[in-house]
Amino acid sequence: MAKLKPRTLSGFMELLPEKQVFFDRMVAELRRTYSLYGFTPLDTPLIEASEVLLAKGGGETEKQIYRFTKGDTDLSLRFDLTVPLAKYVALHQNELSFPFRRFQIGKVYRGERAQRGRFREFYQADIDIIGDGSLDIANEAEIPSIIYKTFTALGLRRFKIRVNNRKVLNGLFALLGLEEKAGDVMRTVDKLEKIGPDKVKAILVDDFGVEASAADKLLDLLRTDDPIGALEAYRGHNELLDTGIDELSTVVRYMAAFGVPQDHFMVDLTIARGLDYYTGTVYETVMLDHPEIGSICSGGRYDNLSEYYTDKQLPGVGISIGLTRLFFVLEDQGYLNQEVLTAPADVLVLPMTEDLGPAVSLATALREQGIRAQLYTENKKFKAKMNYADKLKVPFVAFLGEDEVKNGVVSLKDMASGVQESVALTAAPGWLAEKVAGLGVGTPIRDRE
Amino acid sequence: MAKLKPRTLSGFMELLPEKQVFFDRMVAELRRTYSLYGFTPLDTPLIEASEVLLAKGGGETEKQIYRFTKGDTDLSLRFDLTVPLAKYVALHQNELSFPFRRFQIGKVYRGERAQRGRFREFYQADIDIIGDGSLDIANEAEIPSIIYKTFTALGLRRFKIRVNNRKVLNGLFALLGLEEKAGDVMRTVDKLEKIGPDKVKAILVDDFGVEASAADKLLDLLRTDDPIGALEAYRGHNELLDTGIDELSTVVRYMAAFGVPQDHFMVDLTIARGLDYYTGTVYETVMLDHPEIGSICSGGRYDNLSEYYTDKQLPGVGISIGLTRLFFVLEDQGYLNQEVLTAPADVLVLPMTEDLGPAVSLATALREQGIRAQLYTENKKFKAKMNYADKLKVPFVAFLGEDEVKNGVVSLKDMASGVQESVALTAAPGWLAEKVAGLGVGTPIRDRE
Repeated sequence: MAKLKPRTLSGFMELLPEKQVFFDRMVAELRRTYSLYGFTPLDTPLIEASEVLLAKGGGETEKQIYRFTKGDTDLSLRFDLTVPLAKYVALHQNELSFPFRRFQIGKVYRGERAQRGRFREFYQADIDIIGDGSLDIANEAEIPSIIYKTFTALGLRRFKIRVNNRKVLNGLFALLGLEEKAGDVMRTVDKLEKIGPDKVKAILVDDFGVEASAADKLLDLLRTDDPIGALEAYRGHNELLDTGIDELSTVVRYMAAFGVPQDHFMVDLTIARGLDYYTGTVYETVMLDHPEIGSICSGGRYDNLSEYYTDKQLPGVGISIGLTRLFFVLEDQGYLNQEVLTAPADVLVLPMTEDLGPAVSLATALREQGIRAQLYTENKKFKAKMNYADKLKVPFVAFLGEDEVKNGVVSLKDMASGVQESVALTAAPGWLAEKVAGLGVGTPIRDRE
Repeated sequence: MAKLKPRTLSGFMELLPEKQVFFDRMVAELRRTYSLYGFTPLDTPLIEASEVLLAKGGGETEKQIYRFTKGDTDLSLRFDLTVPLAKYVALHQNELSFPFRRFQIGKVYRGERAQRGRFREFYQADIDIIGDGSLDIANEAEIPSIIYKTFTALGLRRFKIRVNNRKVLNGLFALLGLEEKAGDVMRTVDKLEKIGPDKVKAILVDDFGVEASAADKLLDLLRTDDPIGALEAYRGHNELLDTGIDELSTVVRYMAAFGVPQDHFMVDLTIARGLDYYTGTVYETVMLDHPEIGSICSGGRYDNLSEYYTDKQLPGVGISIGLTRLFFVLEDQGYLNQEVLTAPADVLVLPMTEDLGPAVSLATALREQGIRAQLYTENKKFKAKMNYADKLKVPFVAFLGEDEVKNGVVSLKDMASGVQESVALTAAPGWLAEKVAGLGVGTPIRDRE
């Protein structure tokens, strides 16, 4: 029979078993951390009616959307987790309690140009807090602590959370007479780090007709070492700006109580976030040693999550991690913690007798104790069996030959040390449980100190 | 602005938070159980090239497949987890170690006619063991123990695993001169329980020209109380049948050692499983109190997983749980264990002072201890706050008013008993950790005894 060449689509991540274990560990850590802050898990469909998903218009992503018909229904694959959340909250608003805190970790689809490190199917890991009519600023202050706790739980150390407030930016623009040009100015300012102050000023002045003096004032403020101090000088002239300064100060003030170390956090007035709907605090997170990959966790405060679906005012704050891309970078840059136990089993049970009864009983007893035991019963040479154990990186091998069965013992080999011990069959589960407990409990990522 | 009515597509399950917690608990139990047997997690793309996914032909499911083009690529959503596994193993055969044991829990898509309890997007939870060239019968014997352990871990009690062997069936057919009609006979025999022996005989005789005496012999054998005993009488006449009897006896013989109680297991010679590729042991699992929903976990032994992609012979054995449908039935029939803690937090921290510092510090300390703490800072009346705590079903509320802060204590209210205690702030994490440890640790499902 002619064979079809098996292949996986380009832009779709498909991991080998060992790498998959790391990815799953990361997902588990995210779930655990988000849960510590009172977020409840959600899982919405990957497919939505196109009119629902594109109610707002897909913007730049519209042409990337996987859209198709089935029967006579116009369907689309979700391109983020925010629009499905907006639909969910609008649809179930009477059954939810607000503030509604949910996390969702799931795949989304964007038909981007395929290139290394860019994915068409990728995981996003989102949290959002949705209020009913109002939402206290304390929620915005809590988000950086969640970002800090999340990445620390994964094992990252050298990262920094950058925070800004859109009310500060908009207030400043009003004060400097840039109100009409706010959108253009914000998008330009967002590029400060990438293209530098001179080019930003040139764009502001040449392209958008900003007065050179206003551009200078703005750039001075955006580049100061003490942004909150510098902002205080502008207080009292614009209500929005004053509110923004208050909010930003509040967020900063609670950082220590929330357990975020000073050096993992900064105010950065250049951050605007591209999307138009952020209205308060905005967040970005950068890896100190890999600024080139951009923000690994971003988000902010928005005033109206579900305006396309309901009259109910639903302000919220949320952040998103592009997990697949982050994993790709971490793996690529050698961040995976090689001490993590990736073996599919803690012990490989090797029966060396015709009757498998004793081996089956041992494996069953081990599993009752919570030990991951794999029974290996293939008819192979001893060397092939040990080779298999090596390849899987199982920490222990249990031999059950005729002598062992006769004496009611099992030979347990520690594959790391090579030491082999004879242990009573009845004592083996306890013996192994103790040895295995300390294995591979480290963080999935290991960062530089 | 005109609002678009939010909706979720029919045939797509979207759960409210409390139900989602149950679903996630079930997934967690499956992951844990599968891991005990040495299965490694996999996660393959939801989209595959249509030519790859449909290499075998989709059979009955072909018209149900979600197929579309993006750019000029012909794509399809996976309709099961087996074909993607066949592709994966063929593609990565040189990087995998055999036997290769993997589990995968993921969504699949079938455009079935929408009806109550039928889903177009649904989770399958699969395990497979793939051998390189050969695979020992012990693997087939182990599968029922995994089924038993899995459903027991979920909390199900009243279920039975039914086992048969296709070699037994095929051998019998050969012996009774039904070899040419094996496919038709098997498909008919598979309906025995549904339509009864008379109708099966009628179909066999009238539609497929089976001799009445052969049909009677077959039906007698299929309906005996002691199938293995009855089969022994046929031994020695047909090699395939003898092998089948050996295999079936081996599977049964190891059940006790594998920890499967007698009453959860039976040989049922009527089981054939529709798919043509099963060649050895086959499995079905039925809920004793809900036979009408059919098998909740099925599978079997096959000889060649990836024949459409590679010349390598890859025999295997696997089972699949239709998790979304199972969850639907369990929820619908009142099986969810109401003692499970579905609250998104263990404690709701209610600051009653202007300065949130102490409350933030307390929440941070609680989280350090692994306690899921939600900070509630909305400006609402006391009654609304307690109402919120009730709705979320949080087990504890922590009050921090001026008196508490001044005295360095927190008032902790046990929402179940209504008892409120004043506990030193420094002692609160330990106090709560102890109280919370025993909460909601039961199985997600509660079955009748």
